[in-house]
Amino acid sequence: MTAEAALDGGAGRLRDATADDLRALAALVGTGGMIAAGDPAAAPYLSEPRDRYRGQAAAILKPGSTREVAAIVRACADRRLGIVPHAGGTGLVGGQVTEAAPAPVVLSLERMNRVREVLPRDGVVVAEAGVVLADLQACAAGAGRLLPLSLASEGSARLGGLLATNAGGVAVLRYGNARDLCLGVEAVLPDGSVLHGLKPLRKDNTGYDLRHLLIGSEGTLGIITAAVMKLYPAPAERVTAMLTVPSPAAAVDLLDALRTALGDQVTAFELIARQGMDWLARFHPERADPLPGRPAWRVLVEATAPGGTGLDARAEAAFAAAFEAGLATDGALAQSEAQRAAIWWLRETIPEANRRVGALSSHDIAVPVSRIPAFIEAATAAVGAVDADLRVNCFGHVGDGNLHFNVFPPEGRRKADVAGLEPAVMRAVHDRVAACGGTISAEHGIGRAKPAELRRYGDPAKLAAMRAIKAALDPLGIMNPGAIFG
Amino acid sequence: MTAEAALDGGAGRLRDATADDLRALAALVGTGGMIAAGDPAAAPYLSEPRDRYRGQAAAILKPGSTREVAAIVRACADRRLGIVPHAGGTGLVGGQVTEAAPAPVVLSLERMNRVREVLPRDGVVVAEAGVVLADLQACAAGAGRLLPLSLASEGSARLGGLLATNAGGVAVLRYGNARDLCLGVEAVLPDGSVLHGLKPLRKDNTGYDLRHLLIGSEGTLGIITAAVMKLYPAPAERVTAMLTVPSPAAAVDLLDALRTALGDQVTAFELIARQGMDWLARFHPERADPLPGRPAWRVLVEATAPGGTGLDARAEAAFAAAFEAGLATDGALAQSEAQRAAIWWLRETIPEANRRVGALSSHDIAVPVSRIPAFIEAATAAVGAVDADLRVNCFGHVGDGNLHFNVFPPEGRRKADVAGLEPAVMRAVHDRVAACGGTISAEHGIGRAKPAELRRYGDPAKLAAMRAIKAALDPLGIMNPGAIFG
Repeated sequence: MTAEAALDGGAGRLRDATADDLRALAALVGTGGMIAAGDPAAAPYLSEPRDRYRGQAAAILKPGSTREVAAIVRACADRRLGIVPHAGGTGLVGGQVTEAAPAPVVLSLERMNRVREVLPRDGVVVAEAGVVLADLQACAAGAGRLLPLSLASEGSARLGGLLATNAGGVAVLRYGNARDLCLGVEAVLPDGSVLHGLKPLRKDNTGYDLRHLLIGSEGTLGIITAAVMKLYPAPAERVTAMLTVPSPAAAVDLLDALRTALGDQVTAFELIARQGMDWLARFHPERADPLPGRPAWRVLVEATAPGGTGLDARAEAAFAAAFEAGLATDGALAQSEAQRAAIWWLRETIPEANRRVGALSSHDIAVPVSRIPAFIEAATAAVGAVDADLRVNCFGHVGDGNLHFNVFPPEGRRKADVAGLEPAVMRAVHDRVAACGGTISAEHGIGRAKPAELRRYGDPAKLAAMRAIKAALDPLGIMNPGAIFG
Repeated sequence: MTAEAALDGGAGRLRDATADDLRALAALVGTGGMIAAGDPAAAPYLSEPRDRYRGQAAAILKPGSTREVAAIVRACADRRLGIVPHAGGTGLVGGQVTEAAPAPVVLSLERMNRVREVLPRDGVVVAEAGVVLADLQACAAGAGRLLPLSLASEGSARLGGLLATNAGGVAVLRYGNARDLCLGVEAVLPDGSVLHGLKPLRKDNTGYDLRHLLIGSEGTLGIITAAVMKLYPAPAERVTAMLTVPSPAAAVDLLDALRTALGDQVTAFELIARQGMDWLARFHPERADPLPGRPAWRVLVEATAPGGTGLDARAEAAFAAAFEAGLATDGALAQSEAQRAAIWWLRETIPEANRRVGALSSHDIAVPVSRIPAFIEAATAAVGAVDADLRVNCFGHVGDGNLHFNVFPPEGRRKADVAGLEPAVMRAVHDRVAACGGTISAEHGIGRAKPAELRRYGDPAKLAAMRAIKAALDPLGIMNPGAIFG
């Protein structure tokens, strides 16, 4: 088996499912565990949030246990059927849908939604892949602990997908991304064997770390069925503010100043451009902007601390120093839970507003934090050189160097009107990312949207090793064919 | 190439180096870059701290650059010569020395000891694999930042080895282990290609995470030549104390109470048994014990915070509450840097004292934190059942569930006198670890000391996947033959 053989998207080796295949698979999941391809109930499994891909499937399978997942994988390996794993379906790069033939089995983890154990003393929760993130956060809070993973889609994203894509979000600055919060996984490998890795241990140096190989592999090496997630002491003090900053450079300086003053008690630091606020105002006119004057740039800052540390006073002193230094020019401090929620709502609703406008090309990129100002300037100019009327909405996670640099059609025009510009726009943005030593995918992954970009910008030695690993663990190429490798 | 073919320790495929091989390798590193096998200067590369293995080598090579490392690896692949990477040589499981034929090339990274870049604004330092950890810590401190990785051997351990073994240490509770602190690696893969992964990015979801595959792989998949390490804001407040605890169970409760009060400002929490203190007193009678009464169990607690949080008062209040609750019965709070250093010296010198006594069997294990008391009780009883006079010195990192549960010959006898008991002792301890859902290697790795234990206690699906990955990336089996897989 050569590396290439596993990487042709399954062509030539994977088959379309026959009626016999589907009968055999249905028998593995029991009544209600399968949705036929033509059933209207299958539709949600064949679309994705940005409507760039319309998936297809031989059937939707909904196993109820790890044992059933393993049986499905073994059957698909025997029968040469591709498998597309599906958790919350919130991914933004098409990792959860395939348009390519042969039609795969879509394996939904939604029925595996049990929290198996909450162990506050061990600082962990053990949960199945189908648990919705918000439910897991609530479960941790109920035990007096914090599960720090937090992102806009947390009301529907499920644990398995969050790990398969190594999700990021708004608390990475302080707590790391999904992989940093995971101590171990249970997974079904492409041969149907079950990796039993659910130990709640913070140290375990017994050979290769398959957990980290599976996390971020987007379902191409196996199916994560459960995970041990770290819990943290719940913070008792919290400060949330929105501050006007004169520029992205000032935002970077402000973060540095706040971290000098507050250490890593700065838990979130989000940059927001005027464009995003303008669209929020258009779609949600009932929502007030806490800042006056429609500033070009603003940041959402949140800091947390254990009890008794005087965080309010320390943060206010740090903000005052920032005003003094010209790093911020206006600000609104949340004085209540309602105000805090209102500030966060603004940040969390920007992606929805973006979707209503309809991006021409979305870029989930990261650059070294110090390069953020230079990147924004260069990339904005490069997009303007493609077409001066294109609109940019730039927002994201300053502390991670992670910007969502999304490009929209000119005012009054739709995506379809300017679709021909998309390749040039993507090239313009990604070339500036590469020039800054950055990455073309910070937190969304590669999926089916970016394999060509990965080949273009990726490290050749890394790509060769990835292909060798894929071929070694999934020689038949059944796992999420087409994702990552194209 | 089957998976097994790469895993026979190189037998049948690897060769002894000829004079021609050595001439060719010498030419790759220039004058002073090679030490001949018989040279007395080779001796330090062929021993390890516990004197359990006496290594052999065809030659010691000391490349000065990544390019030279790549040339050596390519030459060794072409010539079918095994390579044993060598960083600080402080590993405790024999990963850095081999006794098996054919004699390998030992590749020392000590000349690659440059800090390439310190980027405080980006929160990273980029350093070569040969940098000594203490030097890297000092470099970070000079930039007003904290490099949190800290362990007893930091004065001689080098970055490449710390990453290859995913070192742990005393700050894992708060900051994670070596892998958690590493954002990217540069590495030479077994085919001589160079993985360029030194981006200082906190988010990068572009395919499989080869960084985490290499970290902890103990040199069996490639040679890490440089890394990007995270820096943290330097804490401004610090409290260090040694507290007498009535039992390991009280220690676990005390940690929970302190984390409830101080959040994750608790940065270290080390358990120390009387046995370790007794040996320190024997070998270092000039050092005072800050606690009276030679308690059976004590903990070293350290908490840190950014400035202005009143940590002293908060910690003292938390300690007072712990005394009130009976979780601690005596205590000594460091009142100066000298006292702080003296307290830490006690903890850091226990391993040296252990080596002077000479352990029969050392166990670097981890169990879920909540199981620590039950494990200590069960394992101590099990060792006593092997021979009632054996002595146990148990110490370690409570917050990580990581105990060094080391077993020593009876008083007045030496290791050689009771060597026949070692297998039974190891079995007794590791069986109790397994019963508690723990791991037989928490932070030291597998090396050449524990491959059989890994096969016995490891997950079969994990072991099969490890073998497949090893065969895919190192089909000739040249990288650290015999390590991990035996």
